[in-house]
Amino acid sequence: MDKLELRCKECPRRAKAEYNDDTVRASLARLEDTIIFALFERVKFPLNPPTYDLLGDLVRETEALQFEAHRYDNPEENPFFPENLPPFSAPEYPFTEFLQGAGASININKEIWEVYFRELLPKFVKCGDDGNYAQTAFADLTLLQAISKRIHYGKFFAEVRFKEARIICEPYIRAKDKEALMKFLTTESVENTVVMRRVEKKVMVFGRELSQEHDFKGDVSILYEKWLLPLTKKVQVEYLLKRLD
Amino acid sequence: MDKLELRCKECPRRAKAEYNDDTVRASLARLEDTIIFALFERVKFPLNPPTYDLLGDLVRETEALQFEAHRYDNPEENPFFPENLPPFSAPEYPFTEFLQGAGASININKEIWEVYFRELLPKFVKCGDDGNYAQTAFADLTLLQAISKRIHYGKFFAEVRFKEARIICEPYIRAKDKEALMKFLTTESVENTVVMRRVEKKVMVFGRELSQEHDFKGDVSILYEKWLLPLTKKVQVEYLLKRLD
Repeated sequence: MDKLELRCKECPRRAKAEYNDDTVRASLARLEDTIIFALFERVKFPLNPPTYDLLGDLVRETEALQFEAHRYDNPEENPFFPENLPPFSAPEYPFTEFLQGAGASININKEIWEVYFRELLPKFVKCGDDGNYAQTAFADLTLLQAISKRIHYGKFFAEVRFKEARIICEPYIRAKDKEALMKFLTTESVENTVVMRRVEKKVMVFGRELSQEHDFKGDVSILYEKWLLPLTKKVQVEYLLKRLD
Repeated sequence: MDKLELRCKECPRRAKAEYNDDTVRASLARLEDTIIFALFERVKFPLNPPTYDLLGDLVRETEALQFEAHRYDNPEENPFFPENLPPFSAPEYPFTEFLQGAGASININKEIWEVYFRELLPKFVKCGDDGNYAQTAFADLTLLQAISKRIHYGKFFAEVRFKEARIICEPYIRAKDKEALMKFLTTESVENTVVMRRVEKKVMVFGRELSQEHDFKGDVSILYEKWLLPLTKKVQVEYLLKRLD
């Protein structure tokens, strides 16, 4: 039953990712959908405390499986337990090498993990135990992966901005001027308002259509405003600081 | 970072599932959301043919992980490769024992697998290869698990109907009269129209709000009308035929 032969008829074409202002913005917006879906799927279950006795191991083993299937060849993906994985796998696919400098390998997943389990999850889910521990663990992992991808996408955004305005940006990097780099990434603050409005609207419209309860104790806006956007900015600045290394 | 101590404050309460006409209908509607989300997530990727060289192994290994985390203790869940799993694990959680008779263990996942890869997937995804094989494989598995859960939920629906009208149903079972059993499950045909309309509306509303392309080659209605609803009915009839064994 598992000898699958699925082949494209017209094309064996390889669609290489292109990174520019438009494509990066589009990817960030698409990741919103993924995050909102994953959040809706997680909040179907209550907290389910026994999940968390096994979650660390489940995530490690799943990441090992996904590593073998070359998930982390894609520079858009970052594992939560890189120390658990071999340092290298021969890539199966020629992913676009867009990121430059030492910042390419920035991985703040340990911080994301802490924030997720200490701050976010307890806000979003209801108390209770319905026994669906494996399902809950995988719902958490899916949501964590989507949030992590969104935040680390800041590297691609920062590289696009660097390429657009290297002359302005380079002196700030040499001076290690975090504040100036923050300002250099400013268009963002206008955009954050746009993002926030769009996210709120999606949650409202999806929520109205859903056949599941969605009485978030917290609010998706908090997720974005308090955690996702600041952590993305942190990644952007860190990336630029290491851009010339 | 992975010593997580998440505990409910007020309640260590165990919410046992109750199965009746209302709760079963509500679960089926909730599963629609899951199926639609999973479908949107899968069609983000093109066909990605190399995924299918490794998919069988990935699914087997993931199911083994989820088995250890007691996914299949819940009678609502059915593995795709049961022959790959130990026959028994001591349940962690006292799931409601609602299903009765030999039909409780019906598992048509081999058929669902065939239909999914031969008929559905090629209809929904675009040709192409973007290198995201692990992500594609897990998107397939998530969608397969949601579809499988939806179809096998037919057992719970059939048991509810049996309990409501055992006197009518029992002679049909003893006579092995499939056609009469089909008719016994009739309220369904009216409902199918309701389900189809609701699914179409959800896909339309979600699709309009999404920031991702959702140019399905196929149509979610086909998934429901041609595969999901008939396979659910098949499970219902098979379940009833074995109800007295």
